[in-house]
Amino acid sequence: MNRERILLEHGGGGLLSHELVTEVFLPFFKNACLERLEDSAVVTLGDRKFCFTTDSYVIDPIFFPGGDIGSLAVHGTINDLSVCGGIPLMLSAGFILEEGFPMEDLKRITRSMAEAAKTAGVSIVTGDTKVVARGAADGLFINTSGIGRIEYPSPLSVESIQPGDAILVSGTIGDHGATVLCKRKELGLISEIRSDSAPLNGLVASILAASPNIHCMRDPTRGGLGAILAEIAGQSGLSLSIREAELPVREEVRGVCEILGFDPFFLANEGKVAIFCAAPDAERILDVLRNHEYGRDARIIGSVGERDGGGLILQTIIGGSRVVDLPLGELVPRIC
Amino acid sequence: MNRERILLEHGGGGLLSHELVTEVFLPFFKNACLERLEDSAVVTLGDRKFCFTTDSYVIDPIFFPGGDIGSLAVHGTINDLSVCGGIPLMLSAGFILEEGFPMEDLKRITRSMAEAAKTAGVSIVTGDTKVVARGAADGLFINTSGIGRIEYPSPLSVESIQPGDAILVSGTIGDHGATVLCKRKELGLISEIRSDSAPLNGLVASILAASPNIHCMRDPTRGGLGAILAEIAGQSGLSLSIREAELPVREEVRGVCEILGFDPFFLANEGKVAIFCAAPDAERILDVLRNHEYGRDARIIGSVGERDGGGLILQTIIGGSRVVDLPLGELVPRIC
Repeated sequence: MNRERILLEHGGGGLLSHELVTEVFLPFFKNACLERLEDSAVVTLGDRKFCFTTDSYVIDPIFFPGGDIGSLAVHGTINDLSVCGGIPLMLSAGFILEEGFPMEDLKRITRSMAEAAKTAGVSIVTGDTKVVARGAADGLFINTSGIGRIEYPSPLSVESIQPGDAILVSGTIGDHGATVLCKRKELGLISEIRSDSAPLNGLVASILAASPNIHCMRDPTRGGLGAILAEIAGQSGLSLSIREAELPVREEVRGVCEILGFDPFFLANEGKVAIFCAAPDAERILDVLRNHEYGRDARIIGSVGERDGGGLILQTIIGGSRVVDLPLGELVPRIC
Repeated sequence: MNRERILLEHGGGGLLSHELVTEVFLPFFKNACLERLEDSAVVTLGDRKFCFTTDSYVIDPIFFPGGDIGSLAVHGTINDLSVCGGIPLMLSAGFILEEGFPMEDLKRITRSMAEAAKTAGVSIVTGDTKVVARGAADGLFINTSGIGRIEYPSPLSVESIQPGDAILVSGTIGDHGATVLCKRKELGLISEIRSDSAPLNGLVASILAASPNIHCMRDPTRGGLGAILAEIAGQSGLSLSIREAELPVREEVRGVCEILGFDPFFLANEGKVAIFCAAPDAERILDVLRNHEYGRDARIIGSVGERDGGGLILQTIIGGSRVVDLPLGELVPRIC
């Protein structure tokens, strides 16, 4: 494969994204914070712990069932802070606009960002706008960066995951990816399908309050649940065993995947969290999740095995098991 | 003028940028922080004051004499924090890459960012990369957001400017804008001209240490010194009187401006600061500036008059005076 130029897969959250980060960015930007490769950096400001994160949103189309690029940009960064144990406090918003972009669309997206921020209880405190000539960008890109306050006493990190931990997911997988796919392919038939884009700070706060034994959380966006689990297995050297039959998938999403040849395990989510916790607390956390509007379909989906480099093992519905590798990249570009 | 679509001037730091912010963003993102319209938001985290800022960089060309999009993205955000009195601590970096972008260029830019950050004593602690298909972006865009710690006791803000204040600029104006212009127009003749892109945190720290009577600072980037002074005059209702003869302009920059019909007063700077301070402290601040490598050509350029809505008044070299309006937008798009 040609590695002299950037490929679409370099932005897909899979193997090539990982390679780009570890071979291009990390060697130059050497510091302990970045090397942890979590969704946010945990930093000390004054004498307290905060987290700081950034994400650019380039989703195509910018309007989709269940949201738009504006609400997504707010939810996505709130979720990156939340899964690191941060209580999201404030966001920045940086717009890159293509000359000729309709002002009405910009207002609609701005309104949507403001509403999403208000609903989640965070403020957009600083911003920036750049405009490039026609053809130099595709409509509108948004960057949001965010700061959150950390109060959870134990570190939430891949390094905290222990053999024997339970693995949970907060709801159905692949909704966002399948929605964007349908919208792109103009599959009008499957009208019920919507992105799960949602702010997870409330849900995460409720499970952190319910258990002191949560070890790690991740936001399974690009590359889906499969990619983040494979990445964690790779980083930690632990085997992760997932029961395919327990993976919650909406019927409509399964239908789209069957038609188009995708696997919901590798499709993006924008309102879901994967949780690693001490096994005895799993049922309690599951109850709390199921009592929250964004966690009704939560499941315990597997467990952590030994530190034997066994990777991510999927116990298939038909009774076999297979090792799942980190995909090369998201199969659907510009999903977020 | 058609206001139903985004124009290049909406990103130019002039009147249309101002209109976009006050008519589209502010009505939705209502909060005291954003409404101050400073270069960074001043926020309280724990029991201390910090500043938080964001900027996207879309400069064309990405490599130019004196820097590249990477060093610029680091310097620009460091400077936005510095002029708000923040000691820059950490940055985020968000990349939007076009499919096919050369890996070597990405490495060169990443190295340049890392070096710029190291020189300025800040860390890049968190990042993100998105890739879009060929034609959906022009090469590479970078967003950097940053956090700085505020220790200066008095608020640095347009609201703190007083009648009688002195106005200083830390060095020659228009260097960055003229460099980008030359590079675009392939004006090879003027080979000495270089961007002034530089981190101002050291220089700003030294003047803040020298005087407790600094009232406001601004980073005259898009739209140049003229645009930020006109904006401050508009926001504050104060008349600002500037002596054209005192404006420091390099001979080469003046030459480029004469050939191409630009005014250095409205050309972008990337390593300069405009300072408003109590008049008795102006000479001391000037001395400190001139002893710093980035302030050798500093000048006292004017003074603040009454709160009479008189606007920005330029005392011209030929002895007249004229009111300078906020330009519609940067005359050179994609300058930063």
